[in-house]
Amino acid sequence: MNIRFYNARILTMEGDLEIMEGELWVKGNRIVYVGDGSDTDKIYRDDPEGMIIWDREIDVKRNLLMPGFKDAHTHTAMTFLRSYADDLPLDEWLNTQVFPKEALLTPEDIYTLTKHGIMEYLSSGITAGFDMYMQTSMIAKAAIETGFRMVQVGSINNFGGTVEDCEEEYKYLNSLGELSSYVFGFHAEYTTSREIMEGIADLSKKYKVPVFTHSSETSKEVEGCKKRYGMTPTKLFDSMGMYDNGGGGYHCVWMSDEDLEIFRDKKLSVVTNPASNAKLASGIAPITKMMDMGINIAIGTDGAASNNALDMFREMYLVTALAKLREMDAAVVDGAEVLKMATVGGAKAMCLDDCDVLAPGKYADIVMIDMTQPNMQPENNIVKNIVYAGSKSNVKMTMVNGRVLYEDGKYDIGISPEELNGQANAIIQRMIRDSR
Amino acid sequence: MNIRFYNARILTMEGDLEIMEGELWVKGNRIVYVGDGSDTDKIYRDDPEGMIIWDREIDVKRNLLMPGFKDAHTHTAMTFLRSYADDLPLDEWLNTQVFPKEALLTPEDIYTLTKHGIMEYLSSGITAGFDMYMQTSMIAKAAIETGFRMVQVGSINNFGGTVEDCEEEYKYLNSLGELSSYVFGFHAEYTTSREIMEGIADLSKKYKVPVFTHSSETSKEVEGCKKRYGMTPTKLFDSMGMYDNGGGGYHCVWMSDEDLEIFRDKKLSVVTNPASNAKLASGIAPITKMMDMGINIAIGTDGAASNNALDMFREMYLVTALAKLREMDAAVVDGAEVLKMATVGGAKAMCLDDCDVLAPGKYADIVMIDMTQPNMQPENNIVKNIVYAGSKSNVKMTMVNGRVLYEDGKYDIGISPEELNGQANAIIQRMIRDSR
Repeated sequence: MNIRFYNARILTMEGDLEIMEGELWVKGNRIVYVGDGSDTDKIYRDDPEGMIIWDREIDVKRNLLMPGFKDAHTHTAMTFLRSYADDLPLDEWLNTQVFPKEALLTPEDIYTLTKHGIMEYLSSGITAGFDMYMQTSMIAKAAIETGFRMVQVGSINNFGGTVEDCEEEYKYLNSLGELSSYVFGFHAEYTTSREIMEGIADLSKKYKVPVFTHSSETSKEVEGCKKRYGMTPTKLFDSMGMYDNGGGGYHCVWMSDEDLEIFRDKKLSVVTNPASNAKLASGIAPITKMMDMGINIAIGTDGAASNNALDMFREMYLVTALAKLREMDAAVVDGAEVLKMATVGGAKAMCLDDCDVLAPGKYADIVMIDMTQPNMQPENNIVKNIVYAGSKSNVKMTMVNGRVLYEDGKYDIGISPEELNGQANAIIQRMIRDSR
Repeated sequence: MNIRFYNARILTMEGDLEIMEGELWVKGNRIVYVGDGSDTDKIYRDDPEGMIIWDREIDVKRNLLMPGFKDAHTHTAMTFLRSYADDLPLDEWLNTQVFPKEALLTPEDIYTLTKHGIMEYLSSGITAGFDMYMQTSMIAKAAIETGFRMVQVGSINNFGGTVEDCEEEYKYLNSLGELSSYVFGFHAEYTTSREIMEGIADLSKKYKVPVFTHSSETSKEVEGCKKRYGMTPTKLFDSMGMYDNGGGGYHCVWMSDEDLEIFRDKKLSVVTNPASNAKLASGIAPITKMMDMGINIAIGTDGAASNNALDMFREMYLVTALAKLREMDAAVVDGAEVLKMATVGGAKAMCLDDCDVLAPGKYADIVMIDMTQPNMQPENNIVKNIVYAGSKSNVKMTMVNGRVLYEDGKYDIGISPEELNGQANAIIQRMIRDSR
């Protein structure tokens, strides 16, 4: 499909976040033009195929085009546990509610629930997920069938997976085209043996691939690691050479100065999950300090069981609002920086170098923000409006890899919301029935 | 208008928050029936006018009807300063940005901007606001013309208003029908002389009307009051007899145990404003303790200049998420309690006894929640889905006083979003031009 957006305002997320007026052209799955429309003839000159035949021309009506959000830490299929067990202490929630239900998931369930979560991503303008879950081939199938971009990360731990599996996953999931990719990872230090962690570190070195894992989410986790290994999780991973090819941590709430220095020096990414960390009472990550140190920060929703929404607008607000509370200073973590985290910061963490900004040659992962809604007005500062006043309701369109998957509340993902909702409810009902 | 909702799921917010299936009938501006539809004949028997002629019958398609949200502390017209000056320390924000711009507002501006804010309320399922601002007659005019329910509170302080004005406002704003009402109030202790505060206390006693004010928003405010009067704001107000007829405080972040005991004993309401308190780095209110003491809690957005959205879904999430962080306990402030605060708690604080739940005889202030959207699925717990995963995008319809004012993204308030957006932008542009 070749799609021309015209009469648009465009926030490319390059440079100083100025908003331009003009056109954006998509040819196949790539952006071929972004500009005021006065110099489009060069596209034709440079293109061996000549004139583009438009499949669709979209009058953007001065709404805003911007890069899609990147959900840089999630467990997509966990939508089935949304609001299943809230308001419980973390341990009880995990051990009595989450783990027993997860054990009952079939591969087919994960395929269905991943599609269900993808629907929710699209409704929030999220164009790529950094997903850690089981049954990775089913997740890739769901993503590719719906047209969604999914970067997966290994979830190996003492209760599931082998290092050999991870190597196979790495080869397979990176062979499926531009909508599927994979980096190495493991669940967390407290669930994974040293042997497995060393195996993942070796794979990382062999293939020169980054490693991500849950890290320093709770103070209890850090204290446990110190008891077991005499050092923090970050220092432990680094001592194994795990971070020699980049990567980073999910959560990173309880980071020492030394941990952050490792992140800075090894150019690692922090993926912050403010809603999940608040709802599970884990704490507030030291975002201000991370920014001051120049560490790349990305934003994730975590899974629907803990959050309970896959909503990047809520996360963006929380990143800055919680930092302001943590430091008791209204001036910290400028909203504009948060919008960068949710887009280019996420793309960087997820190795999606071609999905970060709106520019020729990049993949067409694009969101249209409805500027006519009252919460986007007046237009004193459009970037701040998005971060401080924005909502899922402002997402008018979500395009992934050149395809419009969501527009004006309707999905084009090959299956209806009614079917997916019905299937998701059937899965949890079956589990409740079977566990009686 | 007589409107029949059928094929509905209904959360009346009475009792234990069970969801019933059935019908809800609206005759004029009141609810006349809520039930499974098997006993509607008694309506006709009891009604001297006999059969109801339906102006409209709405198939709710098993979506959810629930009471409208009450925004129990707001400054509606401040939408013009949305994203005008973010990420600044509180003092600088107020003194160099907010106050100078507010001084330039005309009565006509406030009329226009109030309508603009009302649009935003409706899009978030808010059916009544507890508004503190200037030009109260223009605010009432905007509310009545759009069909929105506005409870106003006096904003008198050393820089504007007289006690006599407040008495006039009280009489006038309570004479305009069920969409306009007024209770006594003043801006805050730190902006208001003892003489004025005593005047308001006298009015409250004369008319037996509650008093509300900004209270204990920052620790600096409380410390200042202690220096000036030797006691906390709450104790000061109580010592003046201000709370003898009820009322309460907006914000209430920095409350001593003694303050909370006064709130409990005098049956006062706390109106919490979590987004504003976070964004301005004021702190986290002790919601858990307030709940334990049985104090009525309502939720407000505060104005768009500080929040920056008028979005009750974001507020609800923050009430519980921030409490969990404050206590470092994921089990505190159950989501179901938060939904009560946003509806019946607000109605109680705002003296809207007929707007709290869905029941015969109550005003028809109703929201329809779109249950087909992925964030409302699966239906493990619908109440928790609303609080923990809900978004403005789930608001399919907002009815105030029996009139559908918002439905499927469209407004029926006598003026278009385009016009109001244009006018709001023109106001701030004029101010910027004039202050050059």
